[in-house]
Amino acid sequence: MANQSDSSCVHKVGFPPRRSLATDFTRGLKETFFADDPLRPYKDQPRSKQLALGLRFLFPALEWGRDYNLSKLKGDIIAGLTIASLCIPQDIGYAKLANMDPQYGLYSSFVPPLVYAVMGSSRDIAIGPVAVVSLLLGALLQNEFDPVTQKEEYRRLAFTATFFAGVTQAALGFLRLGFLIDFLSHAAIVGFMGGAAITIALQQLKGFLGIKKFTKNTDIVSVMRSVWGSVEHGWNWQTMLIGSAFLAFLLAARYIGKKKKQQLFWVPAIAPLISVILATLLVYITRADKHGVQIVKKIEKGINPSSVDQIRFAGSFAAKGFRIGVVAGMVALTEAVAIGRTFAAMKDYQLDGNKEMVALGTMNMLGSMTSCYVTTGSFSRSAVNYMAGCQTTVSNVVMSLVVMLTLLVLTPLFEYTPNAILSSIIISAVLGLIDYEAAYLIWKVDRFDFMACMGAFFGVVFTSVEIGLLVAVSISLAKILLQVTRPRTALLGNLPGTMIYRNVEQYPEAIRVPGVLIVRVDSAIYFSNSNYVKERILRWLRDEEEQQNANDLPRVDFLIIDMSPVTDVDTSGIHALKELHRGLQKREVQLAIANPGAVVVEKLRLAEFIELIGQEKLFLTVGEAVIGCAPKVSEDV
Amino acid sequence: MANQSDSSCVHKVGFPPRRSLATDFTRGLKETFFADDPLRPYKDQPRSKQLALGLRFLFPALEWGRDYNLSKLKGDIIAGLTIASLCIPQDIGYAKLANMDPQYGLYSSFVPPLVYAVMGSSRDIAIGPVAVVSLLLGALLQNEFDPVTQKEEYRRLAFTATFFAGVTQAALGFLRLGFLIDFLSHAAIVGFMGGAAITIALQQLKGFLGIKKFTKNTDIVSVMRSVWGSVEHGWNWQTMLIGSAFLAFLLAARYIGKKKKQQLFWVPAIAPLISVILATLLVYITRADKHGVQIVKKIEKGINPSSVDQIRFAGSFAAKGFRIGVVAGMVALTEAVAIGRTFAAMKDYQLDGNKEMVALGTMNMLGSMTSCYVTTGSFSRSAVNYMAGCQTTVSNVVMSLVVMLTLLVLTPLFEYTPNAILSSIIISAVLGLIDYEAAYLIWKVDRFDFMACMGAFFGVVFTSVEIGLLVAVSISLAKILLQVTRPRTALLGNLPGTMIYRNVEQYPEAIRVPGVLIVRVDSAIYFSNSNYVKERILRWLRDEEEQQNANDLPRVDFLIIDMSPVTDVDTSGIHALKELHRGLQKREVQLAIANPGAVVVEKLRLAEFIELIGQEKLFLTVGEAVIGCAPKVSEDV
Repeated sequence: MANQSDSSCVHKVGFPPRRSLATDFTRGLKETFFADDPLRPYKDQPRSKQLALGLRFLFPALEWGRDYNLSKLKGDIIAGLTIASLCIPQDIGYAKLANMDPQYGLYSSFVPPLVYAVMGSSRDIAIGPVAVVSLLLGALLQNEFDPVTQKEEYRRLAFTATFFAGVTQAALGFLRLGFLIDFLSHAAIVGFMGGAAITIALQQLKGFLGIKKFTKNTDIVSVMRSVWGSVEHGWNWQTMLIGSAFLAFLLAARYIGKKKKQQLFWVPAIAPLISVILATLLVYITRADKHGVQIVKKIEKGINPSSVDQIRFAGSFAAKGFRIGVVAGMVALTEAVAIGRTFAAMKDYQLDGNKEMVALGTMNMLGSMTSCYVTTGSFSRSAVNYMAGCQTTVSNVVMSLVVMLTLLVLTPLFEYTPNAILSSIIISAVLGLIDYEAAYLIWKVDRFDFMACMGAFFGVVFTSVEIGLLVAVSISLAKILLQVTRPRTALLGNLPGTMIYRNVEQYPEAIRVPGVLIVRVDSAIYFSNSNYVKERILRWLRDEEEQQNANDLPRVDFLIIDMSPVTDVDTSGIHALKELHRGLQKREVQLAIANPGAVVVEKLRLAEFIELIGQEKLFLTVGEAVIGCAPKVSEDV
Repeated sequence: MANQSDSSCVHKVGFPPRRSLATDFTRGLKETFFADDPLRPYKDQPRSKQLALGLRFLFPALEWGRDYNLSKLKGDIIAGLTIASLCIPQDIGYAKLANMDPQYGLYSSFVPPLVYAVMGSSRDIAIGPVAVVSLLLGALLQNEFDPVTQKEEYRRLAFTATFFAGVTQAALGFLRLGFLIDFLSHAAIVGFMGGAAITIALQQLKGFLGIKKFTKNTDIVSVMRSVWGSVEHGWNWQTMLIGSAFLAFLLAARYIGKKKKQQLFWVPAIAPLISVILATLLVYITRADKHGVQIVKKIEKGINPSSVDQIRFAGSFAAKGFRIGVVAGMVALTEAVAIGRTFAAMKDYQLDGNKEMVALGTMNMLGSMTSCYVTTGSFSRSAVNYMAGCQTTVSNVVMSLVVMLTLLVLTPLFEYTPNAILSSIIISAVLGLIDYEAAYLIWKVDRFDFMACMGAFFGVVFTSVEIGLLVAVSISLAKILLQVTRPRTALLGNLPGTMIYRNVEQYPEAIRVPGVLIVRVDSAIYFSNSNYVKERILRWLRDEEEQQNANDLPRVDFLIIDMSPVTDVDTSGIHALKELHRGLQKREVQLAIANPGAVVVEKLRLAEFIELIGQEKLFLTVGEAVIGCAPKVSEDV
């Protein structure tokens, strides 16, 4: 090793070429807001080509429309029909979650999918009302107006909130702030979705047991109290019979669909519609509605009426709508983007998150003017869409047309549909949102993530959807901040027979170099951790000195900081390093720096820290630093 | 190199020994809350020794008191007298900033320093009212009560707020949450202090120009409007003459003190007291107060009266006091801890931040019961204390005794002291808070830090102290979050003649390996950046492939991710890595991982990512990964 050491010691730490402030700033902005480099295809193109590209960017339908053919159409029609059969009963049920009349659920499955079909870039997403957003919107709106006694105001606020949800989504995309939704971690989403699913299922106990007086709160304690409180009034056994029979049927269909995903995916997809038809027939024949079985009664016939005049753009009413819209819009966005990314990864195509947000926002803005409430991509229907072999967004158009036909012709047929069957359909649908496998994986891999997951879950179940969401976001942010405040540090040792130095805890075979303390700092050194890093390094040194005194070993003369993982340093960090250097001088320990990165070395130079410790104390690798510091010792190693 | 490659390729990536959840959790808690390992000296000690150590921990005076001697006392007496002469005129002026009567400033320099002397562990800090906290407290209290018409309520709220400031400080220390104050970055503090200094100086224009009607707002626009608006009523020339003459004298003293720090540090320290004496004599002799020169008039004689009955512990009054106390307490804490750390580093002794907070908190709680408002360590007086050769907190006791004597005997002498001289003293004192050298260094080293600095500065100057503080904290946090959201990535190349791979931008001599793309990710991979990291790596690959097509180079068959700086990964991060792997498989590019850390490799194994890519795709170094992936190519390099 000795002969190698001489040659390898000549390497100098590189100083990056200096960049001007403008270049630096532009680069930072570009990576933050234009990480996907959206203007690349426009470069070096004639004006007319650029215009065509721009149009195709805004309306991806123009892009895939050019090589659309009959075989693709066939796939889209089959997929569209399948998701239509799934969405119609779900829409009616979800509208109830949002405290709206059933037709509003169907309206929301007509206009928004058409808008998305021309503007959206995900080929697999199925657009419409979804359970979690319906519940969230219902809960938030209910805080402002009573959905029964103040029906008019409630509906007006719903459309106003939907409009602002759309504005929020489009604005985030347009301002390229899409990365903000990344602050809701995967773990928090898993917990939040699971909690929302339980809450939604609990809400269905009302329809399922035929309870008339039911709490407005969504937390489990209030709901269970409502359920037990109503025992004395008697649950309606006919309702329960219908509900449980069809729930069993739906769960069986789900099970079959899961067992043979490839061939039988359509079984759980059409089971809801079959249940609705059978249950409606049953009630109609037996006139069970006369025995206390609650039915849908009336769904307004005809397609979406205009609701432009219902939206308020100013005043305290608009302020309420804005606040609710921002929350509902963000949650809807999170769901849609997660779905879009999942399927884009499965089929390996690029999805532009910011563009997608503009599409979803436009869709909700237009939706709010045509009596729709907040819509987004549905987990369950998108999966069915994908399994059924959808090729493009045309499957959404097919679904939309079926919903239109239903609105125009079939609504009277739903008159005798029992509410219990809708509850069963919702319960079986939201069960899919409880991802216990993901939760188990999170538990296994990362305990802190699991805390975030459980925090969101219990927050939703025991308090409310909003609180659960807040808990999820807070824990996610707290995790980042804590990690930045208390970064890991590690002692390094030499892997025998190499120039490689590694964490002695991870590599027990690594041998510590006598007289040299090698510490690796596992994070950027910022104001939030600079003091901790400094104190922690000094503590390593004190620990070491104590051990040496106890065991009569040679004293530590050199402290080498491995800066490989130190990706950045700020003025507080440099300040702490200077203080560390001063502390070491008093102890007569020499400081050396190994492998500082481009940004770090530049800042250390500007702050004259390198002059302070001496240019010769800067090394390319830890190995060279050891040789440079203590050539005699290193030969013995 | 070839012969070395065979031998070095046998190294395996180390898997750390598995730790139980409990160990993991305890370690995390310990590093977060007990990073300084406070219980270490108690280990393996008999009970009686532990008790003695505990007492000495609570009252450091017991510790240093044992080897206190005459020569140390001499140093402390000189330093104490010097800071007393500086603090008396400052106290009277600062009390005005807090809209309190002048004696409350003196009260606050009597009790708190005594409490700190027995409990505090910094030897150099000088305790008392300070300009920034006085201004902040005054501004916050003024929002609730008018200091002139509602004098009683105002004062009661001041003591209540002071009590809760103490509670906040002690609680932070006791709960070991001291690291929370680290979230205010150095840059933000520099900007905030500079802005507060300008604001305070502008406030002094009232006394300096002898203006009677003055705005209550602290922003520069309101103040300048007040100043110009009063031109027509005429400024008082006698006041201006006294003010400017003594300001010139004070600035000259400051200049002299700065030039010859070692010998003449006492010149600026006693200049204020001399100015006060001279100006008071002048006014008394010329009876300038009859010509419109405003004077202090009356300072209550006698030491601190009790104010226990003025503090409210419940109701909305207490809630207001709590809110104001938390803000003022945190700012006071930030200042005290920054001072303590600076001088501890200069004299190389350990300072326990959490214990210090308990001392400061107790001091303010006791202070609030003895008519003191929020006190903390003063930058200017602590520096003088240090220069004058203080040895222990006894210098604070000496100062406190001098203030007591002043309160008992000398207050009538201040009757004819002109307000203008107090304004001059405050202006010359706060000028020291404008640290333009630090601001320039920040500008040079870190533009983002500079933005935080300027944001805080302009926030304070143009709006208010509270808004400036909010801006400072927000920018500091935004910086952390942004950095975590958009981490850097770098392409690596081989340094000729070595096995070392480094960033090709930092080391232009590094040579890219044909057919192999080596990317280093410069951050932990978390939910907030996992998608970005995945997309960014794929973009590097696309860029590379485009270049190869253009230049007819061999295609990329291997992608090596250097994980040295990846200190952690969460479930979202692993999810993104799995998606990346799937994307690469479609492109027929093989993925290899180099040098994953202990935590990362453990999590990747638990999430079965290592099984997915294959154990043999895990390498100890980038060099070995290149040999492992493309043995033929690497020999040519």
